[in-house]
Amino acid sequence: MAGHEFTSIRSPRIKGARRLAKRAFRQRERRFLAEGPQAVREALAAPGTVHDLYTTSEAMQRHADLLSAAHARDVPVHRVSLEVMSELAQTVTPQGLLAVCDFVDVSLADVGRIRLAAVLSHVRDPGNAGTVLRTADAAGADAVIFTDASVDPYNGKCVRASAGSLFHLPVVVGVGIGEVIDHLRATGARVFAADGGGERDLHAAAESGDLDEKVAWVFGNEAWGLPEEAIALTDGAVSVPIYGAAESLNLATAAAVCLYTTARQQRTRARSSPRRREYAPEA
Amino acid sequence: MAGHEFTSIRSPRIKGARRLAKRAFRQRERRFLAEGPQAVREALAAPGTVHDLYTTSEAMQRHADLLSAAHARDVPVHRVSLEVMSELAQTVTPQGLLAVCDFVDVSLADVGRIRLAAVLSHVRDPGNAGTVLRTADAAGADAVIFTDASVDPYNGKCVRASAGSLFHLPVVVGVGIGEVIDHLRATGARVFAADGGGERDLHAAAESGDLDEKVAWVFGNEAWGLPEEAIALTDGAVSVPIYGAAESLNLATAAAVCLYTTARQQRTRARSSPRRREYAPEA
Repeated sequence: MAGHEFTSIRSPRIKGARRLAKRAFRQRERRFLAEGPQAVREALAAPGTVHDLYTTSEAMQRHADLLSAAHARDVPVHRVSLEVMSELAQTVTPQGLLAVCDFVDVSLADVGRIRLAAVLSHVRDPGNAGTVLRTADAAGADAVIFTDASVDPYNGKCVRASAGSLFHLPVVVGVGIGEVIDHLRATGARVFAADGGGERDLHAAAESGDLDEKVAWVFGNEAWGLPEEAIALTDGAVSVPIYGAAESLNLATAAAVCLYTTARQQRTRARSSPRRREYAPEA
Repeated sequence: MAGHEFTSIRSPRIKGARRLAKRAFRQRERRFLAEGPQAVREALAAPGTVHDLYTTSEAMQRHADLLSAAHARDVPVHRVSLEVMSELAQTVTPQGLLAVCDFVDVSLADVGRIRLAAVLSHVRDPGNAGTVLRTADAAGADAVIFTDASVDPYNGKCVRASAGSLFHLPVVVGVGIGEVIDHLRATGARVFAADGGGERDLHAAAESGDLDEKVAWVFGNEAWGLPEEAIALTDGAVSVPIYGAAESLNLATAAAVCLYTTARQQRTRARSSPRRREYAPEA
């Protein structure tokens, strides 16, 4: 397959792949582009995800392991010229590898047990969304849910910022915030809105034991946060405390602090609970 | 002053301000540009920092409060045409306000009491550096130190990402990593290297009480972290635990988790120490 090199950006196959840079075409074909060796490696590790792999001659030699992995999984590999790769890739300096992948999202009902989840509501910047996805994965989250008012997780910038995490954990897309919160609460999770104006302080919430069990965090828009109606559906708004003079934290940073503080509570609960009870009168 | 409108990008004054987009000129004049209403507001709040303020007629009306603040501080205000503002501004959609500021950094010796500090070593992306600065401010850090191998904090992207925090807390620039660590340790701080390969886990370090007193964190390069020699100078490398399948966290995210975990320890120490001692045999 890789013997022939595509050199024309007008080849129907190349044009078909290139269209996936646009959301409308992604939606229609339920496919998206994953660029660069890291994303391609993670995509290949997710069975049945990669539909086609495009590579330059140079990248083929440099990433022989990925080519072998593609062959082992019967993924068609297409060799393309540098010019064609530049046309397909969405980065300024393409790394010579690009996979056409099938959508990986699952339905809300298909997400299994949830102990820690992140919900993105009205998050608009794909870089932020991808970073939250990566951080949620690192913090051991069981799912990341993009509500219908959030950015497309298959946007190229989001895929890149997720650094492969899009392929690691269940991702749900296009569900309404009300439905998401109802579902999560039905599974026994406490749902907190991360909100700079929240009356409760994250550290106080952690010390109170409220983050010890199943927890889902809802993160809102970069500029204006979450609508009041959405916050009203949750178990309350919690803010990352600002100890200095900064006005606020950026979205991905606040999400990291909320998710990791929760992950720590969930893992130290067994040890800390008896202490907490012991010292309750003092608190 | 604001009666006359500068309409030519060839005016010596405008050319002089515009040059500050380049590091060499910033270094020579020890001045830099702060763009947009938020940065300008914070700069004006720092006495003696703003040297000149440039504004469009439209921004003048929209931000009358900032103009009054400038007048109250005897800061010369220059009205410029939209074309001139586009030339001066480094953003695609300039918000019509731009301040020429004097450098705000202080020497290492002039930083007062340090309870929490962030050190950036070989951090190269100005957006990351600015985000760490903003997060360190939010977490209540007493200083942020840019070593001589790190990006320029006065780079426009760093100033914007710091969201005003550059003007909030002492910033030190251009010191060698060895000198910084020596100084911090001499003040009684424990100095930890944030490193994905670190043998100690951040949460374990927190539980052990090592983050309860004076702490400084050293953050390294986005791609390759910190050199071994630098780590060897610290009290050890500590990693943010990865509970999921992600390979790593991005720099600003990892920094946020380290700084906030420390801030929480420092504030809950008084209450938690007796518990820790009480339950030490169990741990």
